[in-house]
Amino acid sequence: MKILIKNGLIVTMNSTFEVLNGDILTDGKMIAKIGQDLTDPADEIFDAKDLIIIPGLVQAHVHLCQALFRNAADDLSLLDWLKKKVWPLEGKHTAQSLRISARMGLAEMIKAGTTTILDMGTVHHQDVIFEEMDRSGIRGYSGKAMMDDGDIPDSLRETTKESLYESQRLCSVWHGYDDQRINYAFAPRFALSCTEKLLRETAELARDKNTLYHSHASENKRETELVKQRFGCGNITLFEKLNAVGKNLCLAHCIWVSDDEINLMKEFEVNVLHCPTANLKLGSGIAPVPEYLEQGILTALGSDGAPCNNNMDIFREMRLAALIQKPKYGPESMPSRDVLAMATINGARVLNLDQMTGSIECGKCADLTFIKNDQVHSIPYENIYSKLVYSAGSTDVEDVMINGKWVYKDRHLLYENERLLAEQAKNEIKRFYEN
Amino acid sequence: MKILIKNGLIVTMNSTFEVLNGDILTDGKMIAKIGQDLTDPADEIFDAKDLIIIPGLVQAHVHLCQALFRNAADDLSLLDWLKKKVWPLEGKHTAQSLRISARMGLAEMIKAGTTTILDMGTVHHQDVIFEEMDRSGIRGYSGKAMMDDGDIPDSLRETTKESLYESQRLCSVWHGYDDQRINYAFAPRFALSCTEKLLRETAELARDKNTLYHSHASENKRETELVKQRFGCGNITLFEKLNAVGKNLCLAHCIWVSDDEINLMKEFEVNVLHCPTANLKLGSGIAPVPEYLEQGILTALGSDGAPCNNNMDIFREMRLAALIQKPKYGPESMPSRDVLAMATINGARVLNLDQMTGSIECGKCADLTFIKNDQVHSIPYENIYSKLVYSAGSTDVEDVMINGKWVYKDRHLLYENERLLAEQAKNEIKRFYEN
Repeated sequence: MKILIKNGLIVTMNSTFEVLNGDILTDGKMIAKIGQDLTDPADEIFDAKDLIIIPGLVQAHVHLCQALFRNAADDLSLLDWLKKKVWPLEGKHTAQSLRISARMGLAEMIKAGTTTILDMGTVHHQDVIFEEMDRSGIRGYSGKAMMDDGDIPDSLRETTKESLYESQRLCSVWHGYDDQRINYAFAPRFALSCTEKLLRETAELARDKNTLYHSHASENKRETELVKQRFGCGNITLFEKLNAVGKNLCLAHCIWVSDDEINLMKEFEVNVLHCPTANLKLGSGIAPVPEYLEQGILTALGSDGAPCNNNMDIFREMRLAALIQKPKYGPESMPSRDVLAMATINGARVLNLDQMTGSIECGKCADLTFIKNDQVHSIPYENIYSKLVYSAGSTDVEDVMINGKWVYKDRHLLYENERLLAEQAKNEIKRFYEN
Repeated sequence: MKILIKNGLIVTMNSTFEVLNGDILTDGKMIAKIGQDLTDPADEIFDAKDLIIIPGLVQAHVHLCQALFRNAADDLSLLDWLKKKVWPLEGKHTAQSLRISARMGLAEMIKAGTTTILDMGTVHHQDVIFEEMDRSGIRGYSGKAMMDDGDIPDSLRETTKESLYESQRLCSVWHGYDDQRINYAFAPRFALSCTEKLLRETAELARDKNTLYHSHASENKRETELVKQRFGCGNITLFEKLNAVGKNLCLAHCIWVSDDEINLMKEFEVNVLHCPTANLKLGSGIAPVPEYLEQGILTALGSDGAPCNNNMDIFREMRLAALIQKPKYGPESMPSRDVLAMATINGARVLNLDQMTGSIECGKCADLTFIKNDQVHSIPYENIYSKLVYSAGSTDVEDVMINGKWVYKDRHLLYENERLLAEQAKNEIKRFYEN
């Protein structure tokens, strides 16, 4: 289906950061033309007057399985948060509750203009997350969380063999699904929940399958100390020892990282998944993102899970990612254009999807987010990036297209009944607290 | 007019933090009854099923005059931000542009559930701000900014005598207006823009008129150093020397304050107006709010001005006020109930309006904010305060009542045409950049 989008304010995020008033022609999944006064025949003509069109936003670290646990785990630091709340709840997931959780997370993210994600899945029932990603139309990766060691609940513990086997099975089913729209990322949860064997063999697997290795690292001071006690080194050094560092390594948080480790990250082109709200809410700290950017380390943004955020709203992360660095690095650090880049083209680069998405360019997939322009809370403006990063919010998103297909239009999800979903979510969560 | 509000989830913020399902009867301006299954006759019955009712929110430090300068002054620290951008723009205000700016700020705040403000006005045309506060229906204070000294533009400079005279004139017109709904706060901008004489005489005036003394203090390291160079002491000590400290002193920011000054603030019951976004965005720092709360120093929240935020959204401030303290003070600091209190009952206490507003109690004014309950981004929940502070946003506000009167209903401002206002704002701002 060809769609001709007319008269938008197009923020391309291409290599010259072009911003233009104009039209976009989609041709099936792709962007076929960008220009002024296009008159090509199309199956649909969409009027984008009064709308800003940006590349569909990228959230590079989320936990769909936790959306159901929103507002249920406040005021805790990471290890308590995991042990007392999140792991026991995750361990109680049925396929049905996981399905509802994934639907909630996807609905929230798509409504907020997110079109591409990297999800950390959960140990069991992982196919359900892929099924719901497929149904929603979203682009991205998930992978079951791998947990075969450490102080973890029995409900989530697997053997090394089971973990590797199930990950490979899932990869064979889902990696490259629907013409590369859905992909598999191998996801050892974090060093403290995994054996060295698992961490090492997963690295080989991820390289063999030419996909991402997704984990958490150096999020919390205590966690980083425990890693040092157990492995004799920091997280990044450990990954290097295990031959896991490389362009496909995507590490969430990276707050407590030494200068030597930053050098390793630079040398091996490791990617940082920055989650500013979660880092604050769990009291973990503030990641040295301006230093990463200075070093040329690719950094993307994510909401992390609903119980440590308590949203999955990329606009909130953009705003916060800009703000929290300024007291330390100066008000001129983290200019709004760079922050929007983290959530678009650089997010796509981190996920190795920049040939497909992350900017509005001919030949890329039509992943587009449409934002209301003339809102009392966001006018007037001199700087379009400032407006998008600081003033706009998820609720300014009017329409979202992924892969040339509308998934959210006129503020309605086209694949989901939100009211029914909310009821189902409330019913599911009752079961968690009643048992 | 009597309004019977049925079946809401009422978060009272009263002294025992009651939360109940029930009804509220208003009787003219006041809350007459709160209870279950009220059947009193009323002029209007309002169905609040699926709505959370909270006390109208309090923003204790805003600049309505700057709403027009949103997204126009990024990536600057305080003194450059003032000198290069905000003061020159403020100095160019006409009565008409000031009117549009005030309308924009009021519209944004009311839509976000704010019902009470403390505004720092501007040097000229100050009546306009009061006229627009009156028209909007909002409760609160404003006062012209007083500037008679220092490195300030001629467009804003007054003589001490003029500044005191105009402030008194405005006070005589507006203080206590509409049965105390609108009040005058004396507002020397900050120590660096005022003579000692002005700062001292204003303190006497504020006491005489039994109203607030509203200023900025210790926002920025350089500003605090300059105050020390000029006056030989920090801001708080200066106010103490000038006999300006007391329960009516409301000081925005208070980031760079010594332990001795914190003791002064405690002793004299000085109030802190905390503006977390602005403090980050200008690179100023993070105010030690948990220490203020520990000391029993009353602390309220504000958005500050649109060009250092770039919104005037109290939900964003609540969320950020909770988050930014946790890396330093631990994840259990700033529990969500305390944060909501800062934006409701404690905000009202800071403004000496807690007999009228700040909680939902019989005999107080009917200042009520109605929030959608069953949104995908905010369900499910164990903790209502967590939901309100972290998950909800300004756009969940469905209706707002101030002084027993609807000002925002079904997501429409009743006193303002938003589309027209947006057009007017864009036209006004053109003039600023063309001249």
